[in-house]
Amino acid sequence: MGNARHRISAEHRIYAFCSDVKPALFVESGDEVEFETLDCFSNQIRSCEDKLENLNWSEVNPATGPVFVNGSMPGDVLEIEIIDIEVAERGVMVTGKGLGPLGERFEEYFTKIVEIKDGKAIFNGLKLPIEPMIGVIGVAPKEGCVNCGTPGYHGGNLDTKYIKKGAKVLLPVSVEGALLALGDLHALMGDGEICGTGIEVPGKVVAKVRVRKGLKLKNPMVICEEGVFALASAQSLDEAVKCAVENMAEVITSYSEIPLEELVMLMSIVGDTQISQIVDPLVTARFRMPVNVLRQLGIDVF
Amino acid sequence: MGNARHRISAEHRIYAFCSDVKPALFVESGDEVEFETLDCFSNQIRSCEDKLENLNWSEVNPATGPVFVNGSMPGDVLEIEIIDIEVAERGVMVTGKGLGPLGERFEEYFTKIVEIKDGKAIFNGLKLPIEPMIGVIGVAPKEGCVNCGTPGYHGGNLDTKYIKKGAKVLLPVSVEGALLALGDLHALMGDGEICGTGIEVPGKVVAKVRVRKGLKLKNPMVICEEGVFALASAQSLDEAVKCAVENMAEVITSYSEIPLEELVMLMSIVGDTQISQIVDPLVTARFRMPVNVLRQLGIDVF
Ligand SMILES: [Ca+2]
Ligand SMILES: [Ca+2]
Ligand SMILES: [Ca+2]
Ligand SMILES: [Ca+2]
Ligand SMILES: [Ca+2]
Repeated sequence: MGNARHRISAEHRIYAFCSDVKPALFVESGDEVEFETLDCFSNQIRSCEDKLENLNWSEVNPATGPVFVNGSMPGDVLEIEIIDIEVAERGVMVTGKGLGPLGERFEEYFTKIVEIKDGKAIFNGLKLPIEPMIGVIGVAPKEGCVNCGTPGYHGGNLDTKYIKKGAKVLLPVSVEGALLALGDLHALMGDGEICGTGIEVPGKVVAKVRVRKGLKLKNPMVICEEGVFALASAQSLDEAVKCAVENMAEVITSYSEIPLEELVMLMSIVGDTQISQIVDPLVTARFRMPVNVLRQLGIDVF
Repeated sequence: MGNARHRISAEHRIYAFCSDVKPALFVESGDEVEFETLDCFSNQIRSCEDKLENLNWSEVNPATGPVFVNGSMPGDVLEIEIIDIEVAERGVMVTGKGLGPLGERFEEYFTKIVEIKDGKAIFNGLKLPIEPMIGVIGVAPKEGCVNCGTPGYHGGNLDTKYIKKGAKVLLPVSVEGALLALGDLHALMGDGEICGTGIEVPGKVVAKVRVRKGLKLKNPMVICEEGVFALASAQSLDEAVKCAVENMAEVITSYSEIPLEELVMLMSIVGDTQISQIVDPLVTARFRMPVNVLRQLGIDVF
């Protein structure tokens, strides 16, 4: 039996990842799903006159879903391979008072509309090649709900620029069916997302989902041409970085016999401590290891 | 008159950057200097039996210098262009108790000797292409002394992997003559330097120094093919990242008319918040901007 292709429209959207919620779609492991997504403001901003203070905040950070993946059970890992990302022809940016490290310099909010044409975002005179990515991607937490604006072990608002076409995202499954949802596309975003937004844009994502047994992940990972990344979110960057390093060390030592002191030396010379975002309720850091080094350690599960 | 080439041996070394110290060498702006450098342990570790607890700590983190650059005055910027870095054929690594984010997992210290051959570091069975870099590079602070193990506005132990062949380092000059010193080469180091060391190695650096007037920098910058980087060191990563973002914004707004709200949006989509190291007495973060974006903003001073 071949794998099916499904579609789910943005009418099916959640504002929190919840352990107990009715799925919008049921799929099998190996199926592809096309998600239609709204931008992080649920497309409420249409001009520069639309400022943050006038938004309906109950409709911020939507994620399209949830998708129930048959056969995924707590303790499994859901692999989401990003087959394609398509973004709309205009995006929005917002910054101002209290947003990001320069937020204290502002007394008000600012909105900017950014046109996107032929793969370039037009920012004032500049033509910036877009690099579409997914800001929010997650599964249900163990219990209760986590709003879609917050990142965590379940994924959520990870705002990690490597969650892009060709990448695989691994998320630990906490409830039967996993309950995957995603949204918050950015046409372009740098590490840190320092103004509080990327180029926020509606669009479509095609993803292939696969249930993986026995991987024993506790936190999100991302695999792409730039490397294998262990992600961690916490109150402070110092804490998030420590957790990301620990997550990577834990994954490697569960697959390799390398003594911890040798591993931490190896991580110190070939690995990179990086920042995904510093503007969400929790910040997100990541630790990168090159794929070929993991292969040479005998680790080929990613 | 052509520019001269000088040599300075590792006999001329300092363990602190001091505002009031006798120079070991006098050079002109435009001259090249070949620095011979010891490793960060002053070459004290010769075998795996040499552990951290047995070192003479008064000889840790040497920097070769100081070099008095004629014509450099407080308020100027010293540009150090890294023409070449040559590393020895063996390096050392150390990790263990209390060092880095996994330091609490260890009760003791570990030493590893790493042979370097044909441009590869041999780590257990792995052959890792080396990427030589300078860990310590600085000028005298405004007053008193800063030990060479600590990074700051004067440079020092920045442990930034982009301080490599072809890069330009810009440091704010605080005293007449600048008093440049450098050392602490790494054959290879990842962002974060999470075990507390890179592959620590003696070697030679050829650098061209140039006095630049009117740049008005307050903190170190690094320019290389990967971008223009504003560096900042602080007690916590959150603080260091905030300072690095502020430093970049300050530099750009001093050369461009772009309104701050537009700039912070632009930085948010094309700039990256990055980590240099998290294991020195102060941690170091950096903010990256692409050279071509700065050019399009009319900034061509880097
Ligand atoms: Ca987001
Ligand atoms: Ca967003
Ligand atoms: Ca160092
Ligand atoms: Ca070092
Ligand atoms: Ca260091």
